Amino acid sequence: MLERQVEPYTRRVYYYETDNMGIVHHSNYIRIMEETRLDFMHKAGMDYAEMERMGVIMPIVDVFCKYIYSARYDEELVGCIQLTEFNGVRAAFKYEIYTLGGKELAASGESHHCFLDVNTRIPVNLKKRCPEFYTNGMAILKGTEKE
Amino acid sequence: MLERQVEPYTRRVYYYETDNMGIVHHSNYIRIMEETRLDFMHKAGMDYAEMERMGVIMPIVDVFCKYIYSARYDEELVGCIQLTEFNGVRAAFKYEIYTLGGKELAASGESHHCFLDVNTRIPVNLKKRCPEFYTNGMAILKGTEKE
Amino acid sequence: MLERQVEPYTRRVYYYETDNMGIVHHSNYIRIMEETRLDFMHKAGMDYAEMERMGVIMPIVDVFCKYIYSARYDEELVGCIQLTEFNGVRAAFKYEIYTLGGKELAASGESHHCFLDVNTRIPVNLKKRCPEFYTNGMAILKGTEKE
Amino acid sequence: MLERQVEPYTRRVYYYETDNMGIVHHSNYIRIMEETRLDFMHKAGMDYAEMERMGVIMPIVDVFCKYIYSARYDEELVGCIQLTEFNGVRAAFKYEIYTLGGKELAASGESHHCFLDVNTRIPVNLKKRCPEFYTNGMAILKGTEKE
Repeated sequence: MLERQVEPYTRRVYYYETDNMGIVHHSNYIRIMEETRLDFMHKAGMDYAEMERMGVIMPIVDVFCKYIYSARYDEELVGCIQLTEFNGVRAAFKYEIYTLGGKELAASGESHHCFLDVNTRIPVNLKKRCPEFYTNGMAILKGTEKE
Repeated sequence: MLERQVEPYTRRVYYYETDNMGIVHHSNYIRIMEETRLDFMHKAGMDYAEMERMGVIMPIVDVFCKYIYSARYDEELVGCIQLTEFNGVRAAFKYEIYTLGGKELAASGESHHCFLDVNTRIPVNLKKRCPEFYTNGMAILKGTEKE
Repeated sequence: MLERQVEPYTRRVYYYETDNMGIVHHSNYIRIMEETRLDFMHKAGMDYAEMERMGVIMPIVDVFCKYIYSARYDEELVGCIQLTEFNGVRAAFKYEIYTLGGKELAASGESHHCFLDVNTRIPVNLKKRCPEFYTNGMAILKGTEKE
Repeated sequence: MLERQVEPYTRRVYYYETDNMGIVHHSNYIRIMEETRLDFMHKAGMDYAEMERMGVIMPIVDVFCKYIYSARYDEELVGCIQLTEFNGVRAAFKYEIYTLGGKELAASGESHHCFLDVNTRIPVNLKKRCPEFYTNGMAILKGTEKE
């Protein structure tokens, strides 16, 4: 069970996300994890659109997803997320995507990320480039560790 | 029936393109039309990747698609296309997307496009910015009109 | 300007909907139109998930989309829709997709649909198969025509 | 380096697969891995479309992807794959997706799968349900192990 650092992200399954098996195509969970992550960053004071305007991008280093229960069209998804590692240079997240309004765990996963300058694509430290975001990220991480 | 200006584009239906109805989701035909169009531009001496490297983008102004026959997973699609209007400032295309290796017309459509500078997003004339592409486009258009 | 038959549909642009031009890829508007349409059907007492459970599907016959303003990542989309034709056998919709929280018209469009039995793929009349949905659809159409 | 059990899968990057960073959106590698896997199954005498017609589906249990080099529009992808585990009940694959026509490793990954009856969604053994596919899969696995 993930530590709840922000309010969960919710939305319904779109029709175009289903496939010939009648369920959400597995690739879409990777997208729902991204939606959940960017929603988290907004709520956590690290808004990603603003980060890109400041010249920093946060590409993905790796992703893992385990599929547990098949979500179907129109079901209400609940995306839970936890920032598990963060030091201004790298970040890691864990995810739980529930369906049926939170009743069934559809998928769980994790992802690792780094921060790059949008032009040079060279690694940067958020502590220097987006100090407020760094502080907010560290506070959330510490808050969780304390508990 | 479209005038055949270049060899048709072909590929199979991907599993993730199908939906809960067991058929290719309608939004994917808009993507297959784009694939067919960019394949045409490459074959016609107006390679789009090169056009972008020359600082020109070709956004879509409008698109129409009529759905006729439901393509399913793994069927072989055949994308036919005709450049119907072109003057260096605007371009229009018509499309026929066949399935079952060309046996059934799955969808037909058309699209209109303009050419913009990638930085200013102001309209440009290919005659000035990509003269070779302009010449190749005009030749294909004229070739068709003559016949 | 569309007649407002139900409250508009809203959601933000996802990162994966953007493309190399930095804007929402044009094919995604076709998907956003579908989201807006299915949201309308739910609000209008013609819930599509329920329609499929009753054995009726509503495939698309054709779609048109005109692109006006380029929406970007994280902007708030507002999807407006009007049922413009409906007789239990066929339906037509018009759409306006705004961005920047409703400030700019990003795209407008229309689509035509029919109703089929999910197993036989033969046309059906909602008046017989889903009489309540038929009544609700007719009421919305008549309400608009009266005004 | 993966054992080459079949000829690699190739196709170019589509424009709609790129995102605001100018590179292929990470979720699309999960789709390219699926394309590579289904291409492998066809080449290996375990055609998936035929498997579904025999009433067996092969959902994904988990997937991992590591991102190494950013592929861009129009680059030629080369999908390499190796069946690493197979017993008729479960299967595992490893992947390497190269870009620039094979010059750069863009992503590597792995996935686990099971086999289910399409109607009951209960696990089945290919040895019973698709004996020829079972034999072909075992032969490929054994061929690799021997070497």
